[in-house]
Amino acid sequence: MNFFSSKFKLGILGGGQLGKMLLYNTRKFDIHTKVLDASNEAPCKIACDEFQLGDLMDFDAVYNFGKQVDVLTFEIENVNTNALEALEKEGVKVYPSSKTLRTIQNKATQKLFYKDHNIPTADFTRFAYTSEIKEAIHNGGLQLPFVWKSAQFGYDGNGVKVVRTIEDLEGLPNVECIAEDMIPFKNELAVIVARNVDGDIKTYPVVEMEFHPEANQVEYVICPARIDDAVAKKAREVALNVSKAFNHVGLLAVEMFQTKNDEILVNEVAPRPHNSGHQTIEASYTSQFEQHLRAILNLPLGQTDSKVGGIMVNLVGAEGHTGNVVYENIAKIMKLEGVTPHIYGKKQTRPFRKMGHVTIVNKDINEARRVAEQVKKTIKVMSK
Amino acid sequence: MNFFSSKFKLGILGGGQLGKMLLYNTRKFDIHTKVLDASNEAPCKIACDEFQLGDLMDFDAVYNFGKQVDVLTFEIENVNTNALEALEKEGVKVYPSSKTLRTIQNKATQKLFYKDHNIPTADFTRFAYTSEIKEAIHNGGLQLPFVWKSAQFGYDGNGVKVVRTIEDLEGLPNVECIAEDMIPFKNELAVIVARNVDGDIKTYPVVEMEFHPEANQVEYVICPARIDDAVAKKAREVALNVSKAFNHVGLLAVEMFQTKNDEILVNEVAPRPHNSGHQTIEASYTSQFEQHLRAILNLPLGQTDSKVGGIMVNLVGAEGHTGNVVYENIAKIMKLEGVTPHIYGKKQTRPFRKMGHVTIVNKDINEARRVAEQVKKTIKVMSK
Repeated sequence: MNFFSSKFKLGILGGGQLGKMLLYNTRKFDIHTKVLDASNEAPCKIACDEFQLGDLMDFDAVYNFGKQVDVLTFEIENVNTNALEALEKEGVKVYPSSKTLRTIQNKATQKLFYKDHNIPTADFTRFAYTSEIKEAIHNGGLQLPFVWKSAQFGYDGNGVKVVRTIEDLEGLPNVECIAEDMIPFKNELAVIVARNVDGDIKTYPVVEMEFHPEANQVEYVICPARIDDAVAKKAREVALNVSKAFNHVGLLAVEMFQTKNDEILVNEVAPRPHNSGHQTIEASYTSQFEQHLRAILNLPLGQTDSKVGGIMVNLVGAEGHTGNVVYENIAKIMKLEGVTPHIYGKKQTRPFRKMGHVTIVNKDINEARRVAEQVKKTIKVMSK
Repeated sequence: MNFFSSKFKLGILGGGQLGKMLLYNTRKFDIHTKVLDASNEAPCKIACDEFQLGDLMDFDAVYNFGKQVDVLTFEIENVNTNALEALEKEGVKVYPSSKTLRTIQNKATQKLFYKDHNIPTADFTRFAYTSEIKEAIHNGGLQLPFVWKSAQFGYDGNGVKVVRTIEDLEGLPNVECIAEDMIPFKNELAVIVARNVDGDIKTYPVVEMEFHPEANQVEYVICPARIDDAVAKKAREVALNVSKAFNHVGLLAVEMFQTKNDEILVNEVAPRPHNSGHQTIEASYTSQFEQHLRAILNLPLGQTDSKVGGIMVNLVGAEGHTGNVVYENIAKIMKLEGVTPHIYGKKQTRPFRKMGHVTIVNKDINEARRVAEQVKKTIKVMSK
């Protein structure tokens, strides 16, 4: 297949920010793209070659869209996997596969997958309904505290709650869920793995994530993680094993805990370009977006090492501000060394809404971390 | 002015490859763009927010377009400067200015400008018509050999000819021109200068250019140039002086000769992102395209130093091939270390037509140079 021909079409399910960053690279390679998204305001609407409106969870919308392309990928997990499977059967190349995505879409299934493949992960119990949890506690089958996670469609803090007392269960939706052991961890780490159709595989350096204590959103992503080489090596090995177990094609972002005893436990994965890889745009030889394309088009994978140290700061809406967004002090942060803002172009801000990210690069990662804190203190996402 | 607001509009005259690479950065900063180009197939047609068809040399087309934007820039020199001047008088911010562009558009005027500002450049004589040259030679007013250059609209080898004998003058258009001393040079160098509205100014490292001996097109751009520090320092100083003389805003690519005696002579300039700066995308802290935006929007300039060494190889159509393009061995070069192809998406190739470029980065510039040669030997731009 010749991707650099006008007959070839790459389909992308989802027209959000990740898709937009993917499109910089399809354009660089002059690959014809077709995007499906439910919103006429989707960031990918400009920059793709063809845009189609449609619901990603709707079988017909996804199936009919997929029939028009040669390779199909997605920038968001919430897509109709039955349609993907039907397309695969009819010869459309879907990467990552419907099977990988189906396993990942359900957190209970994902956790069982780890158990089945001897991948280290926190212990857990699956429940068909949240209402069954109380009984399990009463019976002594489940100990407090634990982390409640809805099995379906959790994203960035939704669908996850720390349960310390029976009362904490109040108000949770009565859905399929898991109760997971709380892990006393030193660090949250992530490794992005790239695997192409031929099975060539590479890992990016381990990154370290610092979360905002209240919003449960990543505040800094630090590459490379400031951890021992032995721990980093172990984390990359675990990530490789996860990737091989899935037999996946494309990118797989593997989020992990480094426990107090320096064990590595897999938390969850995302089969796409990921928040923990945004700094690769400026810091790595190959950005995660270019790498995803290389992988799904079965091109040789690019180098995953870093030119310089990189830190990613999420730009989220300030508390107390809802309405038309204004970025205060953006020129000030652009004066600092190695700073690149990425503005997602959402018109409305609200507290903790993800509005963009800022990358800080430096040969010295500690200096980058210092600048990152200054960035965080200086720029404000306000409403006007 | 708030560039990060939906009311602000940036106008770009010209919708070609340089504009396309500029648009990666307007999108990164979420800046609303409007592009004017004469072709419905212009690469910028997708990715800009608004596209308008129109002739860049037509007063009304440029003027009416310019009235709709806040800041106006161009990615090509061949635009109607009278329209730019009229827009400036009515308060549209035009960067670089009509005055700078007018001086640059005419090579005789440009050369006179250097003389007037004590900027070192090869000696030359201006002629109103090529037909006057023969007489000047006969009178002893002009010595052979020399370089004939048409004053208007020379580009990439058109409008330039080495004249060694009277016969070499045959077939040249009878237009305004200059006859320039042939400079025995060691190297052709270039320095990109960025200057924002406030007058903050920065230079990129000196790059070294290797030309294809027949096609008179740049074959490799090497950053940093493999020259003495003293020569590099002098080249950056000369480039700064050129920029200050023009009082320009935006990017100014200054092409220079390093003579046998290590003098620096200015050859010509381009007031826009330039072929000699493409490697900045992968190699520099700030790409030339982001820098151009920072400059014309009066934002702080970004760092101009390099993360790694970078080499740019032009991808031109192979001899003997005209027709629908096919890129042979593109996957092979993507296997090499630090290689990024940029495919411009032109459907038709012909000998020496510029179809794209490839960047090679490496911490060791000599290793990058080795890979660059391999890239050059491996990839072929053929017709099918």
